Amino acid sequence: MSGPAPRAGRVLVVGLGLIGGSVAAALREGGFAGEITGYDQDHACSVRALQRGLVDAAAASLDEALGSAELVVIAVPALGVEQVLVAVRESARADVVITDVASAKGVVLESARRVFGALPPGLVPGHPIAGSERSGVEAARGDLFRGHRAILTPHAGTAPAALALVEAMWICAGAAVTCMEAGEHDRILALTSHLPHVLAFTLVNALSQQDSSEQIFRYAAGGFRDFTRIASSDPVMWRDIALANRDSLLAAIDVFTDSLAGLRASVANSDAAALHGLFASAHGARGRYLQWLEAAQAPAAASSGDDA
Amino acid sequence: MSGPAPRAGRVLVVGLGLIGGSVAAALREGGFAGEITGYDQDHACSVRALQRGLVDAAAASLDEALGSAELVVIAVPALGVEQVLVAVRESARADVVITDVASAKGVVLESARRVFGALPPGLVPGHPIAGSERSGVEAARGDLFRGHRAILTPHAGTAPAALALVEAMWICAGAAVTCMEAGEHDRILALTSHLPHVLAFTLVNALSQQDSSEQIFRYAAGGFRDFTRIASSDPVMWRDIALANRDSLLAAIDVFTDSLAGLRASVANSDAAALHGLFASAHGARGRYLQWLEAAQAPAAASSGDDA
Repeated sequence: MSGPAPRAGRVLVVGLGLIGGSVAAALREGGFAGEITGYDQDHACSVRALQRGLVDAAAASLDEALGSAELVVIAVPALGVEQVLVAVRESARADVVITDVASAKGVVLESARRVFGALPPGLVPGHPIAGSERSGVEAARGDLFRGHRAILTPHAGTAPAALALVEAMWICAGAAVTCMEAGEHDRILALTSHLPHVLAFTLVNALSQQDSSEQIFRYAAGGFRDFTRIASSDPVMWRDIALANRDSLLAAIDVFTDSLAGLRASVANSDAAALHGLFASAHGARGRYLQWLEAAQAPAAASSGDDA
Repeated sequence: MSGPAPRAGRVLVVGLGLIGGSVAAALREGGFAGEITGYDQDHACSVRALQRGLVDAAAASLDEALGSAELVVIAVPALGVEQVLVAVRESARADVVITDVASAKGVVLESARRVFGALPPGLVPGHPIAGSERSGVEAARGDLFRGHRAILTPHAGTAPAALALVEAMWICAGAAVTCMEAGEHDRILALTSHLPHVLAFTLVNALSQQDSSEQIFRYAAGGFRDFTRIASSDPVMWRDIALANRDSLLAAIDVFTDSLAGLRASVANSDAAALHGLFASAHGARGRYLQWLEAAQAPAAASSGDDA
């Protein structure tokens, strides 16, 4: 981008959980807009966001707050986005810029098509590759996105000015912005994020249903704790992601299941050479992954925090 | 234990990788024995251990070193234990105390039966629940076991004095000692450690075999890095564990595969209630696991580091 970065007059963040609260805080700390208003359907949550200084104002009515917003950031679970888009259609300015933070992007475009008939030029779906297994307004913090990537999936008719504003928003929040097609986003994130979360949830469930599961968990050490950390993530958010990115997630589960069946056969056959090959190949691939992380020009990939 | 803790005159550590080197260093730092000798079939490794101050002496010949050892700690990959036991039978004192650190314990008892005809009273199989995805003598450190658990799986004929010496060794190294039956150890560790490692190896392999895998890894964030950290573990060690704990590992893989198939069906059916139930149940179980960690009297479980 050349020239001064765009700034917004009034930003409305809808949904003040971990991500929404953190977006608000980051933009407020970065001086991105004249005013950052927060709205949550749980008003106590908006009040708490105001008390914590994450927002300049806490809106009691979504429709009223939408009326004066120049940029709306929708930060609710993936399947709640459509309902907010309905409110945007009813109450927002015609030239409003709309973005979101959902972990599945195809479903957001489908929702927008249903709500608006055609995709609005002001719509710029987005997804910050950052998070935590903690959730809620209390976990929000202004530096959550610093050094992370934000993926935007503009559609063919997205207005350049809208895209520029949302890009500027994420840069202000400290993220590196990448654009890609929504389907590509959903396929990649199903593999790198949604599948690992599903595997971690599954492992913890499988173990907790064993006889003497307390005994089992007692002998689990650091490897297990790190491996299952993401199983402490918010169940509602992940229910929505699994439903919203259903097809890509099913494909990712199938890729994994096939791969696990292959490894199981090598164990069953006591095939030492095959097992060594599988483990060495994974060892090598993860080494290359770490090198890519280090070499990445964007500071994004090198920092910690979850993807979702 | 009452009375002064047993001490050893001369301890021989066979295999100077991460675990063997760390055992030697911990015992040396703790003043456990008159002399800590190290032996590795790669003599350069023994020399390096000596240079790093992990051992008092580096043996060039295993048979010679065995001749004067009072306690032998076998720290080689699981399937290499039997070969060392053969050397012990040939060259060690009749009253030598023998322990090991392998991640599978049934296989060590089987090896000992084959080598000695009957299980020697001096044999105390063991397994410290600590480690790292790093390996080799350079990664060894004397505090690796501090605050961790060491599981011992004595057999019916293990001499009390032998058990007491090995217990004292781990306490000197900073670990909390628990005894259990070898089969129980193998079943538990298959679930809490061997299965998660296999899943992590499988995930990294599955992703690296996708088209545009570099692109895929680029968008993997902190959740993925933590989840796959254990896939950087040593391939030879894990090949041996998979072979050595074959039956328990196959059972653990099957438990997981069934559980994943159930979750897949809920995704395929877009069954929101079932998915929320699964994720909430895992969320809750991991919360209880973290509480157990905190509440555990033994400092062991609360500290970091991998199990293997």
